[in-house]
Amino acid sequence: MAIDHPHRRTRLSALLLVALWSLAESKYIAYNTTQRIVADKLNVHIVAHTHDDVGWLKTVDQYYVGSNNSIQGACVQNVLDSIIPSLLADKNRRFIYVEQAFFQRWWRQQSDEIKNTVKELLSSGQLEFINGGMCMHDEAAVHYIDMIDQTTLGHRFIKQEFGIIPRIGWQIDPFGHSAVQAYLLSAEVGFDALYFFRIDYQDLAKRKDLKSLEVIWRASKSLGLSADIFTGIFPKNYEPPPGGFYFEVNDDSPVIQDDPLLFDYNVQERVDDFVAAALSQANITRANHIMFTMGTDFKYQYANSWFRQLDKFIHYVNKAARQLEFFTERNSSGYTTDSLADALAIAQHHDAVTGTEKQHVANDYAKRLSIGYSEAEKLVGASLACLTEPISRPGCYNMTTKFEQCPLLNISYCPPSEVDLSRGKKLIVLVYNSLGWKRNDIIRIPVISESIVHDSDGNEIESQLLPLADATINLRSHHVKAYLGISPSITPKFWLIFAVSVPPLGFNTYFVSSTKGKGSVASVSTFYSSEESKKSNIEVGKGKLKLLYNVKDGTLTHYLNSRSLVKASMEQTYSYYAGDSGSGSDPQASGAYIFRPNGTFPIKPEKKTPTTIVRGSILDEVHQQINPWIYQVSRVYKDKEHAEVEFTVGPIPVDDEIGKELVTKITTGMATNKTFYTDSNGRDFIKRVRDYRSDWEFQVNQPVAGNYYPVRDYRSDWEFQVNQPVAGNYYPINLGIYMQDDSTEFSVLVDRSVGGSSILDGQIELMLHRRLLYDDGRGVGEALNETVCVDGECAGLTVQGKFYVKIDPLGEGSRWRRTFGQEIYSPLLVAFSKEDGGNWTGSHTANFSAMDPSYSLPDNVALITLQALEDGNVLLRLAHLYEVGEHKDLSAMAYVELKKMFPVRKIGNIIEMNLSANQEKAAVEKKRLKWKTEGSSGVETIARGAPVDPSKLVVELAPMEIRTFMIKFDYITFAKIGDS
Amino acid sequence: MAIDHPHRRTRLSALLLVALWSLAESKYIAYNTTQRIVADKLNVHIVAHTHDDVGWLKTVDQYYVGSNNSIQGACVQNVLDSIIPSLLADKNRRFIYVEQAFFQRWWRQQSDEIKNTVKELLSSGQLEFINGGMCMHDEAAVHYIDMIDQTTLGHRFIKQEFGIIPRIGWQIDPFGHSAVQAYLLSAEVGFDALYFFRIDYQDLAKRKDLKSLEVIWRASKSLGLSADIFTGIFPKNYEPPPGGFYFEVNDDSPVIQDDPLLFDYNVQERVDDFVAAALSQANITRANHIMFTMGTDFKYQYANSWFRQLDKFIHYVNKAARQLEFFTERNSSGYTTDSLADALAIAQHHDAVTGTEKQHVANDYAKRLSIGYSEAEKLVGASLACLTEPISRPGCYNMTTKFEQCPLLNISYCPPSEVDLSRGKKLIVLVYNSLGWKRNDIIRIPVISESIVHDSDGNEIESQLLPLADATINLRSHHVKAYLGISPSITPKFWLIFAVSVPPLGFNTYFVSSTKGKGSVASVSTFYSSEESKKSNIEVGKGKLKLLYNVKDGTLTHYLNSRSLVKASMEQTYSYYAGDSGSGSDPQASGAYIFRPNGTFPIKPEKKTPTTIVRGSILDEVHQQINPWIYQVSRVYKDKEHAEVEFTVGPIPVDDEIGKELVTKITTGMATNKTFYTDSNGRDFIKRVRDYRSDWEFQVNQPVAGNYYPVRDYRSDWEFQVNQPVAGNYYPINLGIYMQDDSTEFSVLVDRSVGGSSILDGQIELMLHRRLLYDDGRGVGEALNETVCVDGECAGLTVQGKFYVKIDPLGEGSRWRRTFGQEIYSPLLVAFSKEDGGNWTGSHTANFSAMDPSYSLPDNVALITLQALEDGNVLLRLAHLYEVGEHKDLSAMAYVELKKMFPVRKIGNIIEMNLSANQEKAAVEKKRLKWKTEGSSGVETIARGAPVDPSKLVVELAPMEIRTFMIKFDYITFAKIGDS
Repeated sequence: MAIDHPHRRTRLSALLLVALWSLAESKYIAYNTTQRIVADKLNVHIVAHTHDDVGWLKTVDQYYVGSNNSIQGACVQNVLDSIIPSLLADKNRRFIYVEQAFFQRWWRQQSDEIKNTVKELLSSGQLEFINGGMCMHDEAAVHYIDMIDQTTLGHRFIKQEFGIIPRIGWQIDPFGHSAVQAYLLSAEVGFDALYFFRIDYQDLAKRKDLKSLEVIWRASKSLGLSADIFTGIFPKNYEPPPGGFYFEVNDDSPVIQDDPLLFDYNVQERVDDFVAAALSQANITRANHIMFTMGTDFKYQYANSWFRQLDKFIHYVNKAARQLEFFTERNSSGYTTDSLADALAIAQHHDAVTGTEKQHVANDYAKRLSIGYSEAEKLVGASLACLTEPISRPGCYNMTTKFEQCPLLNISYCPPSEVDLSRGKKLIVLVYNSLGWKRNDIIRIPVISESIVHDSDGNEIESQLLPLADATINLRSHHVKAYLGISPSITPKFWLIFAVSVPPLGFNTYFVSSTKGKGSVASVSTFYSSEESKKSNIEVGKGKLKLLYNVKDGTLTHYLNSRSLVKASMEQTYSYYAGDSGSGSDPQASGAYIFRPNGTFPIKPEKKTPTTIVRGSILDEVHQQINPWIYQVSRVYKDKEHAEVEFTVGPIPVDDEIGKELVTKITTGMATNKTFYTDSNGRDFIKRVRDYRSDWEFQVNQPVAGNYYPVRDYRSDWEFQVNQPVAGNYYPINLGIYMQDDSTEFSVLVDRSVGGSSILDGQIELMLHRRLLYDDGRGVGEALNETVCVDGECAGLTVQGKFYVKIDPLGEGSRWRRTFGQEIYSPLLVAFSKEDGGNWTGSHTANFSAMDPSYSLPDNVALITLQALEDGNVLLRLAHLYEVGEHKDLSAMAYVELKKMFPVRKIGNIIEMNLSANQEKAAVEKKRLKWKTEGSSGVETIARGAPVDPSKLVVELAPMEIRTFMIKFDYITFAKIGDS
Repeated sequence: MAIDHPHRRTRLSALLLVALWSLAESKYIAYNTTQRIVADKLNVHIVAHTHDDVGWLKTVDQYYVGSNNSIQGACVQNVLDSIIPSLLADKNRRFIYVEQAFFQRWWRQQSDEIKNTVKELLSSGQLEFINGGMCMHDEAAVHYIDMIDQTTLGHRFIKQEFGIIPRIGWQIDPFGHSAVQAYLLSAEVGFDALYFFRIDYQDLAKRKDLKSLEVIWRASKSLGLSADIFTGIFPKNYEPPPGGFYFEVNDDSPVIQDDPLLFDYNVQERVDDFVAAALSQANITRANHIMFTMGTDFKYQYANSWFRQLDKFIHYVNKAARQLEFFTERNSSGYTTDSLADALAIAQHHDAVTGTEKQHVANDYAKRLSIGYSEAEKLVGASLACLTEPISRPGCYNMTTKFEQCPLLNISYCPPSEVDLSRGKKLIVLVYNSLGWKRNDIIRIPVISESIVHDSDGNEIESQLLPLADATINLRSHHVKAYLGISPSITPKFWLIFAVSVPPLGFNTYFVSSTKGKGSVASVSTFYSSEESKKSNIEVGKGKLKLLYNVKDGTLTHYLNSRSLVKASMEQTYSYYAGDSGSGSDPQASGAYIFRPNGTFPIKPEKKTPTTIVRGSILDEVHQQINPWIYQVSRVYKDKEHAEVEFTVGPIPVDDEIGKELVTKITTGMATNKTFYTDSNGRDFIKRVRDYRSDWEFQVNQPVAGNYYPVRDYRSDWEFQVNQPVAGNYYPINLGIYMQDDSTEFSVLVDRSVGGSSILDGQIELMLHRRLLYDDGRGVGEALNETVCVDGECAGLTVQGKFYVKIDPLGEGSRWRRTFGQEIYSPLLVAFSKEDGGNWTGSHTANFSAMDPSYSLPDNVALITLQALEDGNVLLRLAHLYEVGEHKDLSAMAYVELKKMFPVRKIGNIIEMNLSANQEKAAVEKKRLKWKTEGSSGVETIARGAPVDPSKLVVELAPMEIRTFMIKFDYITFAKIGDS
């Protein structure tokens, strides 16, 4: 909840953000894995190996090619294929290979090129043959002549093909060991040593105790010391030491995460694990050398997955403590280049914003956004300071002004504004507008005492003090604790509410000071639902819009606009859908992916809870505790013609073991004929017909040969069968939903993505919150049951959001939807500073617009991107906000005068780009594929803005057109461009 | 059973085997994966891709580094790391990558070298960025400006870093698709096409029906056709088509096995699968182009595992049927270079010969041995023919003689000898001896009528006809059917038994002809166990050895040797151990790895079954049906002083749901003081003390610093605790087991590896067969319950084997154990041909020795290897067979005169090698590490043979010494060297 939904963010235009996006510095780490022996230290010999049984659960050929993996996942071809590039990648990497039966199969399939590479790797010792027989023979059930023969077969091949002689016996898996193996198949073969595992458990215990796992094995009475062989017995097995050192593809062991730009950096922990494992083994060896057998049966199928980790262990364990400290201090240093842009980009992923991720992943997204927000906040603060600082500080060095923001303002937590202004101190409130038109809006900030507001000219402006409701205070303290881990020491007393006016692409500054008894505190009246109330309706709203509420039960009854003369009956109620558990007749549970209701249950307002009406000079509010877990504030502003509803929902109770999906329904008397409209990603509005699906027109009888493609367009429908009367008619809502009758259109805009529909004519519903108890079986493996924990106590998630309601005369709704919709998406940015005693306005820029003071973007155009790129170019993206035919005036061609948009800069060069700005528009047009389509003549008049004339620099925008430009200014210095 | 145990094979010396071992011809296949479009055919576009969610079940960074794999096995770093070498390996390989959030993380960690490589791959189009935003954004819950921003962030990076512009929209996983995505984020971005999956199921069904999965999507009312976008909707999902086309590491899909040298070649089947999948998809597209999306979530962690298969599909599907036929006919062509040597080498693996493999793997080993045997048999046949052919056929071309062998001779199946010899035809029996000393032995072959035998001089030699027992005939017909799939049409009537005498490293030839009434048919007498029998003992054996049997119950009672005057009581009985089920108080089941008996149960011979005594001129036999599933033949040869016991055991009944492990126990009255001896891999005999373990002597109190290593030698013991009184005293027996008392030693030799022990003083036991019903939990996951199936009816496995029993005066046993032990390991090779009417001996070489006629290897030396290598060298390995002190005379230094061993060849060069012949012995000695050992003075007199004087060419062999030589003959032609 504290982290706003991704799209609720301040658009950071070029004026503030010079280079938010930048490629992080190259983080290639050349791991130092040089081999070395240090006399007085414990030396760990890392032996990278695979143990490839020449037949066991699968046949030798099945193991080789990797068939029959259902029995055992194992493919020796993978091992041998992958080891080559892994060794080539770093000359310090070494690997031993044992079973020649597999190697020979592989060898004969290789190209000369690979063969030469292998020869080089063998020659350099990076690849080494150990044991070297065709298999790792048994030592109990085999005759010595067969042992000799199979070893000779392997050894001769290795000698002839590579001129190499294996030096080490390696009998790590046979189920016991014979004297003949030691003196004959090891010493007489000429091995330097024999290593084995599998030994009687009592023998092993005693040898560990006596540090006798390494012995000279004198196995022949007849040949005596002439056939001695150094023998090493592994202390536990032939696997990596305990402590999580398995690195096969998909293995569970913690990998070394040593990239400080990523989360979960863990070098110190893993180094500690490694050292602990080494010390544990050191206790049972005589010398200061121990071996880590890094591998086991059929491992290294992707050798790189092991070497990547082994390299890191060697590299980091060999460093001095000092370097490790550097790395572990990274968290406290706060250094990161993950930006808000990155975080936002990632959050657009189809398992992120949708909620189909696991909870810990959702937390990770929130963390990224929070970090990104925090990074951006610093940058914004610095940029604002730079823009307001005196001209005498060129380059924005040594700025004295600091601006802070309040990301938790939505829950009334804002330390910069919750300050004592008693001794003449003033709070500076800078309000920035990233849109290309002038905006008037209402700001609300929490204050601790009665306050008044002045503009930068020193005039007091209208303000309203609104006592903080208990519900708000509870929410605030609970969630500040939950998200920040602190308990706020101060509780603000009022919301200070005031109107601001901000120029396009610019800011204005306001000054808050304390006052005793002079503040305009709103009146608060509370009534309880009562059958006996005298007056049947209460009117709320001081301006043109009025809402009527029924005194009897506190419900909304009518929507009235005295200017447009719209008068409509309007009810608003809450209901929940019981989430299907999937265990009844319908096996499909409702969950993260699937909305599968099992019944609708209206929520009746509880009679004992009061309705509180707050009336003030700027706005009226209606506070309603619908039930213990739904709190709603409806707002009617004196100068706005839409109503705003702020809902706080949660924790949704699930004591009855039923998941619930909460909706609000707004019901009018409109005859909407199954039809409603929802936005497509906040852009187009798409017509929706209940129980029908708008789709394409089939020309079923025409030939279907490859020359003509069917067209799927926005117009035509085909009938389909609705099996889920509610879920089947639900649509995503990012911007809004509306419906029409003969004379009016009823629009609801949202501040976040929700689901919505019109299940009944004249009614719009929005799904505001979901809490479900069953996984819906589509992969996430968790129920959508989000909780927030404070001091170890967890409760279901509470969400707070807003929607906006307006009824217009038919044909007039689009202007509000488009203009206000854009403003919802790009809210004013509010930053705080303190006046440091002197005359702030005298030494700072208090209001500013990047655009010509006389200029504003047309009503039907939004500035959606203005971003300085690191190469000095500026990316400009302008969007026409209206579709063809959407509005009688505003659906026309729009014109943007760039010279007025950038009055103090000279555009040296302007190139129109494709949407994602990675190629010139002209190039796209040139190579655009022309498709023959069924039933289309190819002749259609489509409006598009003409190319920009570099001398005029006027951008034409046709309906729904978005145009992207790369602009090179002749000189570009955003630091100081003077007041507007 | 038909496949003999690995070590039961004929040693194939250089005389017969010129180049059994050879490296298979290079089988590198350059796959032709060139891209091409064929107009009139269905073109399948293989799109190798991975779908990497930017957070879902794991966080974005967890997915990147591959942590938290317990939640989901996924590591994008693996994907991006592994794709590089995979693409470099073949320029026809192509890969698309989508999510820039991951790519950017990876990119900044790369070295300049990798970066340059990636740039080249991008430039060539092998690697292609698709979609190109930071993530594959959602299309329902996101605002269009956020979609633009995140796409721009990715596209700008790609443009700046690589100068590249993504061409394709790829929204394959979002849960629905918006008009804005189509016209704005695809067409306006400049994409050529948009591909997506996830679409309403009714919509999908209709589109498939109407072939409208590919459409021109006109999504903007305002921009009309100017924002058309070609849109492809996947027909099923974004995964590979159905039919097993997943090739991630450890995936189950059948890989294309196209190496004809390996088993399970399946190119045709997999090509068929691919074509079927393509045709299925073709039915729902308009043009003759379809796309296979080869990949899915987080795949290509080891990219090569996919490309290896994709390459093969492209290669083989693009070929003409003709080539495929070639490959599929491979099985019938019988072509393979897998040799017996390879198969034997593989069978030495510690999960092969041990029986710890799964049953299907055991079958694979058997198949390999069978093929190897068959290959070797052909080679042996040809070599023998060459050696016997007239000198007039130089180079062994156009040989008229054919020699066959009988691998199933052990179950009396030998078609070459089961022939009608009635009309003067003669069966030629060639007997080859691969050892270096002359051998006299008894041969037995099945014949269909009374027959006699002549030697090559035309003299009739002693023979004996032995009627085939019913048990033998039943076993024969059942197992010929089981292993060869045929029912023998002829049933032989007799075993023809005759004595042969074969020179060292040579052969002799015998001629079998038919005779009526003149054959020496053995007498057969049968008696039933009876309390009333008059005579208490029956004596068996015509020579120095006699066995006495008790008439009352048919049991063996005494062993008598009239030469050595050994007279010993001897009983032989059968018992079984009940296999622990692991479900009682002991959780450990008896199984493949673990012998865990749960009680011993003696098997009492059933009284109703008869004992049959067969007496003949060469040997006597005692046939005993011990119980319905144990049949035993004891043999006493006139000219041998050991008894031979042939056991046929099985199917072991398990109707009582108890697994059984069958042992035979031979009990004498010897006072053996817990001590017995077992061989180590058929080489040394190791002293075993019951309930003790012979091990090393600890010098516990001496310093354990790294300078001195403890010695583990053959001498000393330390006490250990026996928790399993039977299993804990079991040892592997490959050659034999013996025990001693004050005056005698009792030896048992075996023809295969078995387990054995002496659980009671004076008693030796051998485990002959095991049938168990529970997996013992050590990995194989199957109970050791082997079955043989005939016509769909399966029964427990029947095994047939032999052991040999001898009692010698103390100090004399080793000679028999060593000499006869070597003969058991290297039995005479018997090959058959037919006399083609003429005088065969006149035109062929009938007897031959490679050695000087006057020469034989010393009794204490065995020739264990004589092998011609492909480089013209000959590998010679000689083994001293006795340990120090093992025999009063034979433990002395032995001398081998190479000049007499190779009388007609001149040794040009002789180099002593290490045991596995991959380096010179001198080099081994030079680099041999010298270890300081605890408690050893380092002065010890060890006998070793001196270096070979090239002028004398006498090889000295000290006790237990094996010496390996590489010999270069001045001229080497094995083809024809004249008669001996």
